Amino acid sequence: MAARSEEEGAVGPRCHHGSTAMLDVPFLPFCAFLGTLGLLCVAMVGTWCQHWRGGFSLDGSSRTFNWHPVLMVTGLVVLYGAAALVYRIPNTWSGPKLPWKVLHGSLALGAFVLTVLGLAAVFRFHNSQGTPNMYSLHSWMGLATVLLFSCQWAAGFGAFLLPWAPTWLRALYKPIHVFFGSAILMLSVASCASGINEKLFFSLKNGTTQYKLLPAEAVFANILGLLIIIFGVLVVAALARPSWKRPDSSSPDSRQ
Amino acid sequence: MAARSEEEGAVGPRCHHGSTAMLDVPFLPFCAFLGTLGLLCVAMVGTWCQHWRGGFSLDGSSRTFNWHPVLMVTGLVVLYGAAALVYRIPNTWSGPKLPWKVLHGSLALGAFVLTVLGLAAVFRFHNSQGTPNMYSLHSWMGLATVLLFSCQWAAGFGAFLLPWAPTWLRALYKPIHVFFGSAILMLSVASCASGINEKLFFSLKNGTTQYKLLPAEAVFANILGLLIIIFGVLVVAALARPSWKRPDSSSPDSRQ
Repeated sequence: MAARSEEEGAVGPRCHHGSTAMLDVPFLPFCAFLGTLGLLCVAMVGTWCQHWRGGFSLDGSSRTFNWHPVLMVTGLVVLYGAAALVYRIPNTWSGPKLPWKVLHGSLALGAFVLTVLGLAAVFRFHNSQGTPNMYSLHSWMGLATVLLFSCQWAAGFGAFLLPWAPTWLRALYKPIHVFFGSAILMLSVASCASGINEKLFFSLKNGTTQYKLLPAEAVFANILGLLIIIFGVLVVAALARPSWKRPDSSSPDSRQ
Repeated sequence: MAARSEEEGAVGPRCHHGSTAMLDVPFLPFCAFLGTLGLLCVAMVGTWCQHWRGGFSLDGSSRTFNWHPVLMVTGLVVLYGAAALVYRIPNTWSGPKLPWKVLHGSLALGAFVLTVLGLAAVFRFHNSQGTPNMYSLHSWMGLATVLLFSCQWAAGFGAFLLPWAPTWLRALYKPIHVFFGSAILMLSVASCASGINEKLFFSLKNGTTQYKLLPAEAVFANILGLLIIIFGVLVVAALARPSWKRPDSSSPDSRQ
């Protein structure tokens, strides 16, 4: 691979794959790794809530709250990440797009349903405890994430799955949809990190279990937070990687 | 712009610029907007610490802590973002690379120095108050960010600014440097969000100024948190945008 010297000053074709050629990770093993990491995050958030926070119920107590982290990590991070990566699977690059669109939309819808249930859990907990809703930065970020996600899903459904959107509208909206796809995941991961941090400060404040003394629960949940961030960064990086994009992604989305 | 129908199943050339052509934001006005947003974040974090948190000092009190958010937002978010975007300036695409490399490295070094001072501020505050260091998820994320940033700077300096790195090593390392460039910024923004959230819970807990009652300080700092996240998302998106990349970015980095 010969270096282009800066004296040349030539402007080459605008393709950016050569620089990654020497680190050509295949998509599917990477995806399997991401899937394992995602499942580990789900298992860990479930274990945290079950083992240290008293498990789950629907009675409005802190055990109702426990559904909130589990559903958010499962829906708004892991399932959302899976939905976002559908078009990076090489099998989606040829043949009819419709089945893949339906898969992408369905995974995103599943993620959205879990997210709304996760929101319902924390509102129910707050309301039954007389705690105000929506005051912390975590809650603002989280709600902004969910609102953007709902707009993203509705606009994606209207533009790409319903038959009446004109080609020019799909072409105009597609890069916006792609941009918000990654942006929402970044917001979602930042919300999770601030939420875990906040929950640990709330929960670990008595006697020997203070957060600052770093009991086992704190170590476990801190590691969970780091794994969620690594998952989010890897998904966003995979989405941005040029050689993993659908080769005809420059064409406007075709009608179904 | 004609749609490529899915029946064609053709695999086109791997360039991904057409889909963004209809939303072709010029880089420099976008950059001016980002600069304004970054300055706003710096002004707001300074105002928060000066107006509501008692200002700044070096005496180990909470006024020493106040340097921490200001230096982190200024260094690890805004100046870091400016450093990351240097190679997206079209003027850098032709002519000698060295001045731009020096600019990129210097901005990053400035960001790193502010970051280390920001860390020193919080360690000095904790130590003088007898508070343990490094227990919260925020601190783990933050320290991971700074450690990655130090490796990133040292490796970038060694590979791209010192003259002895062979071309194959530069070619191998460049996509890794680019990946961690965005990943560190995402981590940094998530650390800021969790830090602001945590600080508000610590500071606003007495009488009428409780965080949950959403006093003016909480609204102000929540908005600051959202603006920092928007800044980070926009920088990462700008870095990932194919049409803003150096056109010969697929070539391995040339020696200076």
